[in-house]
Amino acid sequence: MQRILPSPRRPLTAAGTRGLATSAARRANRAVVYHGTGDPRSVLHATTYPDLPRPPPHALNVRLLLAPVNPADLNVVEGVYPARPAPADALAPGHALARPVYVGGSEGLAQVTDVGSDVRGVSEGDWVVMAGQQLGTWASARTLSAEDVVKLPPGLSEVNGATITVNPPTAYNMLHDYVKLQEGDWVMQNGANSAVGQAVIQIAAKEGLKTLNFVRSRRVQDDLDSLKQQLKSLGATEVLTYDELEDKSLGERVKGLTGGKPLRLLLNCVSGPATTQMVRLLGADAHLVSYGAMSRQPLALPTSAFIFRNLACHGFWQSRWYQTHSRAEREALLARLARMQLKEPEHEVVVLPAHESDADATERIRKVMEALAKGQHGKKVLLRIEQP
Amino acid sequence: MQRILPSPRRPLTAAGTRGLATSAARRANRAVVYHGTGDPRSVLHATTYPDLPRPPPHALNVRLLLAPVNPADLNVVEGVYPARPAPADALAPGHALARPVYVGGSEGLAQVTDVGSDVRGVSEGDWVVMAGQQLGTWASARTLSAEDVVKLPPGLSEVNGATITVNPPTAYNMLHDYVKLQEGDWVMQNGANSAVGQAVIQIAAKEGLKTLNFVRSRRVQDDLDSLKQQLKSLGATEVLTYDELEDKSLGERVKGLTGGKPLRLLLNCVSGPATTQMVRLLGADAHLVSYGAMSRQPLALPTSAFIFRNLACHGFWQSRWYQTHSRAEREALLARLARMQLKEPEHEVVVLPAHESDADATERIRKVMEALAKGQHGKKVLLRIEQP
Repeated sequence: MQRILPSPRRPLTAAGTRGLATSAARRANRAVVYHGTGDPRSVLHATTYPDLPRPPPHALNVRLLLAPVNPADLNVVEGVYPARPAPADALAPGHALARPVYVGGSEGLAQVTDVGSDVRGVSEGDWVVMAGQQLGTWASARTLSAEDVVKLPPGLSEVNGATITVNPPTAYNMLHDYVKLQEGDWVMQNGANSAVGQAVIQIAAKEGLKTLNFVRSRRVQDDLDSLKQQLKSLGATEVLTYDELEDKSLGERVKGLTGGKPLRLLLNCVSGPATTQMVRLLGADAHLVSYGAMSRQPLALPTSAFIFRNLACHGFWQSRWYQTHSRAEREALLARLARMQLKEPEHEVVVLPAHESDADATERIRKVMEALAKGQHGKKVLLRIEQP
Repeated sequence: MQRILPSPRRPLTAAGTRGLATSAARRANRAVVYHGTGDPRSVLHATTYPDLPRPPPHALNVRLLLAPVNPADLNVVEGVYPARPAPADALAPGHALARPVYVGGSEGLAQVTDVGSDVRGVSEGDWVVMAGQQLGTWASARTLSAEDVVKLPPGLSEVNGATITVNPPTAYNMLHDYVKLQEGDWVMQNGANSAVGQAVIQIAAKEGLKTLNFVRSRRVQDDLDSLKQQLKSLGATEVLTYDELEDKSLGERVKGLTGGKPLRLLLNCVSGPATTQMVRLLGADAHLVSYGAMSRQPLALPTSAFIFRNLACHGFWQSRWYQTHSRAEREALLARLARMQLKEPEHEVVVLPAHESDADATERIRKVMEALAKGQHGKKVLLRIEQP
């Protein structure tokens, strides 16, 4: 993985007054695309296309600064995700393709480079994030409908801007939409070191909520200790491992921790037997909200938990939230999250350099996919696709 | 099972004007009790106790006319049900027991035989049902707090009166409390021939809802045909078997049936793999409401159904409903159900005759438990405990 470069950490000049980082006219753009769904290691490839012409009246051109490779993006490429990108017949006008392509990526930070004549409220140089899904952010430049972008609230780093539309709102909404929690209340979650999990820990801590966090045990105790330390530094109240769920006295230990306060919210991205065991720790009238299933096993629960303990189970999908909420609500949520100044997720920036051929860029992106498929990436991968 | 007698079908004189069916003073009463939880076949026994004295000011004496043996009652005796009866130190004043007993039964129809001086709105001769749970209805006579009974709405048979507080309200509330259904909408359920299932079919039909009902297949096709016919005569729109869930074209068939209308409510008393398969037939934003788990297997669902199809799972427990609703709400619900004139559930009345010894009555009740344990009872058992 030596070709994956660390984040260059370009400093901001000042919040809201970022310099427009364009240069002289480029010859071309580049995108990571696929013709048909399949294994990302074999179907993804880099392709170049001409510089974009001026945008139509209701659209704008953007240069993508940084776009994450989220797990869901891989599922989209694999064809196993319920949301699909629209196929593109051309990546730039006059650049007809032999067959339609799909541009990978759904989330991303972009800078506006040109604004259509009828677009109001967005100016050249503004930083924007995607308000729609599956717009194809693994590209150096795109023409987007003005409806599809939201201006980024001020004060965020590139990395936080590029990762603000999926994981932090997932965490925020799951903490707010199901149970009315009061300061001092406890929330339980698994996959606590996932990107969403870390956002949950931070948002909960900022709101005076306590978190009971579960993670996988590590072969080396030091690794576990340092993970626990890391999560606690984010604001985690307590970090336990799934192995500890086997401990028959855990219920009593948890009661000791919470002072007997019932746990009424469980956030789940794991499912499988560990989650079944966690449900036993819940109090009456609790809500289990699922946003992932990393165990690839079903969520299997005793029916009695529903009937006699009034458990309710839901799923949360930030894409649905966007579909069912107005532009004003989206902007308000992003502003709220921006004010929280969450810590940047652990990440690696992968650059597709300007000087590289499409073939070499394809090889580079497939290596990233290989590493992700093997689970070698603890960190979030962010793509920076330079204009070739 | 030759000692289980058919219902004597005592005709009512007229709705609301039932004759007070007491006679000259009785020597004694009888109850089916247990000292400690365990297998109902071995811990239950019949015991006699003296005639009841006049009730205290806020209480009333009732003679139990008919009390069902519900599956939950057996779970209570087994000690595996979350609700417990209060132990009775005496079944009648001055009749101290060597050790406390629990009187079995929670549901039942009773006739008021004597009214405490401060009780208003209830008179001698009124038919009442239990407003509280686990009051001990497997008895010939009890003294109850006036708060614990609700006057039965007029126009109901003994059997309908004795079975109106658990199954029909479970069906009614599950149909109304989770999804706002419109006339012509479809509801799916399993265990459709259970007592609740039959109430669901009838209430849905009366409200213009269509039902997609699942039942176990039968070894003999005629048995299945006659079950289907029976459920359709109650108002079932369609009856399918769990075996048909294996049929890959079932999704298309169901679409044909419903005209593509999405199924948004699934009522579950089975759980296990068949229920998992039924969930695939649900549309988006559906609610799965569980009130039983006859398969004794967990409810195992793909997490994706929660996340991407916005499935929500709940449990319904009529006991909780009573705890969280006012007396006026309870009475309104029973009145609404009484007006619906649901068909009597299939039943057998088991009489513990007056002339029988406690030992013989114990043997009789244990035989009933044996038959229930072996699943030999398709019909609801109703106890009529005569005053010995």
